[in-house]
Amino acid sequence: MRHMSILVVGSVAFDTLTTPTGHRDKVLGGAATHFALAASFFTPVRVVGVVGKDFGPRQQSVFTSKDIDIAGIEHADGLSFHWTGSYEGTMAEAKTLGTDLNVFGTFAPKIPASYSDSDYLFLANIDPVLQLQVRQQMPNVKLVAGDTMNYWINDHRGNLDKVLAELDILIINDTEARLLSGEHNLVAASKKVMALGPKSLVIKHGEYGATAFFSAASFPDLGEVPKPFRAPALPIEQVVDPTGAGDSFAGGFYGYIASQSALTPAVFKTALFYGGVMGSFAVEQFGTERLQHTSRTEINERFQSFRELSHLDA
Amino acid sequence: MRHMSILVVGSVAFDTLTTPTGHRDKVLGGAATHFALAASFFTPVRVVGVVGKDFGPRQQSVFTSKDIDIAGIEHADGLSFHWTGSYEGTMAEAKTLGTDLNVFGTFAPKIPASYSDSDYLFLANIDPVLQLQVRQQMPNVKLVAGDTMNYWINDHRGNLDKVLAELDILIINDTEARLLSGEHNLVAASKKVMALGPKSLVIKHGEYGATAFFSAASFPDLGEVPKPFRAPALPIEQVVDPTGAGDSFAGGFYGYIASQSALTPAVFKTALFYGGVMGSFAVEQFGTERLQHTSRTEINERFQSFRELSHLDA
Repeated sequence: MRHMSILVVGSVAFDTLTTPTGHRDKVLGGAATHFALAASFFTPVRVVGVVGKDFGPRQQSVFTSKDIDIAGIEHADGLSFHWTGSYEGTMAEAKTLGTDLNVFGTFAPKIPASYSDSDYLFLANIDPVLQLQVRQQMPNVKLVAGDTMNYWINDHRGNLDKVLAELDILIINDTEARLLSGEHNLVAASKKVMALGPKSLVIKHGEYGATAFFSAASFPDLGEVPKPFRAPALPIEQVVDPTGAGDSFAGGFYGYIASQSALTPAVFKTALFYGGVMGSFAVEQFGTERLQHTSRTEINERFQSFRELSHLDA
Repeated sequence: MRHMSILVVGSVAFDTLTTPTGHRDKVLGGAATHFALAASFFTPVRVVGVVGKDFGPRQQSVFTSKDIDIAGIEHADGLSFHWTGSYEGTMAEAKTLGTDLNVFGTFAPKIPASYSDSDYLFLANIDPVLQLQVRQQMPNVKLVAGDTMNYWINDHRGNLDKVLAELDILIINDTEARLLSGEHNLVAASKKVMALGPKSLVIKHGEYGATAFFSAASFPDLGEVPKPFRAPALPIEQVVDPTGAGDSFAGGFYGYIASQSALTPAVFKTALFYGGVMGSFAVEQFGTERLQHTSRTEINERFQSFRELSHLDA
């Protein structure tokens, strides 16, 4: 079976990170980076993004040592996007200390001809205008999934609504689902969010796992709407760095989907478990360190741990 | 197989409740009441508590129409314990508007001779001094489980520590686990809490389910410490009244355990699911209304829903 390629558009960046466990200066990061690394264990990935002069052979090899095509990463004059953030105490929320957009500020996504047969599109968390530009250049993909965040929900709602109308699957967290819907109850929120366009919705609950919500459009051939499905997150004693956990979740989830011949409810549910698995690795070390050094064997073992964690008859 | 009886000590009370969905004056409530109703679907229950003149045949029949023995409910002069509370917005937390201890203020638990062969003891959320008095009167029970709350953790820690040392299983929520341990991370918190005495710990996460943590003393014959286990909570669109959800969870959990011939990891995990099932019913109507009108068939159906919600191959 040919594994289908995922095209992901999003940030490729450097992160300066401080957490209760330590500090790192300008390590490779960005939503597209974390997503691509996590997804690459399941299916080939193609990245669309922009970097500056500070993105050299060492950073390139993080991608090219995996099955990740970076022909779509544009090299521009100037420096790469640089995010400075810290996490304190519970690490529940990142505190942004600095956002240097640099070359990302004037980014206009261009899709290489070699990417045009991609079947799966992932619109990582960037300006919805850019998400839409990429979607419009890829009208024939088989499935479109995406992410967003509070900033776009609050201040760019008109553009975001155009993206939401294009999505088969939206992957957001509790706070974003509540903000987007105006509903605190997550079941009520899921209905309002899916009414905005996404056929299916994955709501991430951080350390408590994630829930998938479905609509009649999720599996139109099925003749019924599957009930919600919950996947656990692994209880972890020592979170080193939560940066990129959500993108890694999305990469594991969507990578698994793209590796399967068709999107069925069973595939969707298994994908949620792989999302949790990749998110659980991501937080164990700073930046992309842990995902760079995992293996499919280790992923399979952790998948089994997730099953034992949640299944009565595992 | 003889079903083993649970002896529960705790409040039998009247609750005056206001939630976003409505208001009820002086409906039957109390931790022991919710616990007993939920557990009675699995095993016989015996209640130790105190009520006043306002507890009449109508209230009695709520217990006696199920397999609940109320010989241990003392009738005292005065009025029953009366709690007035409200829930707003998200209903995440109860706001206490009034606590009239009434006859509960001078309660000294006395255990009827007919209860002395009870094999399972549940110390519901009351003054740890009372919990300890009951424990001391029942030295030969097979298993002891209990609950507590912020007030006892903050202001009665010395007495509470004596109770914790007696427990096979402690059932508390995220906030209580963090407060009791001084640790935010729940894995770290679980270790510190179990070091205080409880052999096993169930931490409830509200709408996100519950996690069981184990120690070497949980199943001493097993020769290993089972990894944590997570059970989901049902996504519910309309919570009518959260009062008693935690007690109903404990009742379903412990009732199922008492109905089985031995406490194994598999029984413990299945019990967590039944806890979630009974909690999910409890919130659907005010007070004890929903638990009064459910059936074992309905419970079995909902157990299956919990399985489908969380199992890849349900």
